[in-house]
Amino acid sequence: MKYTLVAWMRDTPGVLNRVSGMLRRRNFNIDSLQVSHSETPGISRMTFVVAGDKRVADQVVKQLRKVVDVTAVEDITDQLAVLRELALIRVRTTTATRGEIVQFAEIYRAQIVDVSAESLVVQAVGTEEKVDSLIEFMKPFGIEEMVRTGRVALCRGDNRSKPEKLSTSVFKATARLNGSGRG
Amino acid sequence: MKYTLVAWMRDTPGVLNRVSGMLRRRNFNIDSLQVSHSETPGISRMTFVVAGDKRVADQVVKQLRKVVDVTAVEDITDQLAVLRELALIRVRTTTATRGEIVQFAEIYRAQIVDVSAESLVVQAVGTEEKVDSLIEFMKPFGIEEMVRTGRVALCRGDNRSKPEKLSTSVFKATARLNGSGRG
Repeated sequence: MKYTLVAWMRDTPGVLNRVSGMLRRRNFNIDSLQVSHSETPGISRMTFVVAGDKRVADQVVKQLRKVVDVTAVEDITDQLAVLRELALIRVRTTTATRGEIVQFAEIYRAQIVDVSAESLVVQAVGTEEKVDSLIEFMKPFGIEEMVRTGRVALCRGDNRSKPEKLSTSVFKATARLNGSGRG
Repeated sequence: MKYTLVAWMRDTPGVLNRVSGMLRRRNFNIDSLQVSHSETPGISRMTFVVAGDKRVADQVVKQLRKVVDVTAVEDITDQLAVLRELALIRVRTTTATRGEIVQFAEIYRAQIVDVSAESLVVQAVGTEEKVDSLIEFMKPFGIEEMVRTGRVALCRGDNRSKPEKLSTSVFKATARLNGSGRG
């Protein structure tokens, strides 16, 4: 099973390295990961997908909370959430196959964002399953190059991800940062 | 200036940690990063954005090429490329503002992917500038939560990212892996 975890962390040098170091030491199996800006300046948001069982996911959450400059962690696997992924796929084309590929893309509401004599680039957004399924359809034509962002997630409805936990953890992280020399 | 780098790496435990460790030790400033599957099974593709000057970007490329299990690295900043980012933005709404927000979203060809009594989630895809600009428009309404994937990139036209470099580097990485015990 795949678990979706979200972690907020302060934009400090080394925080990504501490997180990846922890994941490595504990031998957690990361399927995809991305980190970028959050709605709060100075706080980055990391989304990643861990393969394993519930015990593994709980462990990752527990260990992540201990990492310096990580301000909050949440396992949103069981929550109602909008899960999305962006993929750019370059598919080989000939005059004969181009029409069919464009048709497939339309069915998936994917867009053609670049065309050249021998290939075109399809931009697809959706759940991982949708993107996987589009890729399966495109495979027979020949996938020349592909980039996927991996899963990002936002909880549905009004369950904004616990701001109160965020603030106490920021405080804790600061206290621990001052205590630890490793940085 | 921001540089877009793409690195291919073998799906081995620890490769992400080695990369982030190198970035940390050299004090490179990473704006966003994501890693997920590539078109080749067993090879992950990492896209990341480095802030700095040309010298810094060249250094990152050079250092990355030395990292075990990194099979190829490319600076695609100066190449014609499709650059895209996906963002999910939860915006606060009232009965009075909902219509206006939906209108803004339409102008940006963004989609509304979730609605609740007090907020809605906008899904936007585009260049970072486009996503930034949409976020600026949404700010006055109140952004409750946001997740961005960070930039992903695929070169335009038929310049598939140098497969010949990929294969020689895989060979080199293998040789170095056998020589080094650190794994």
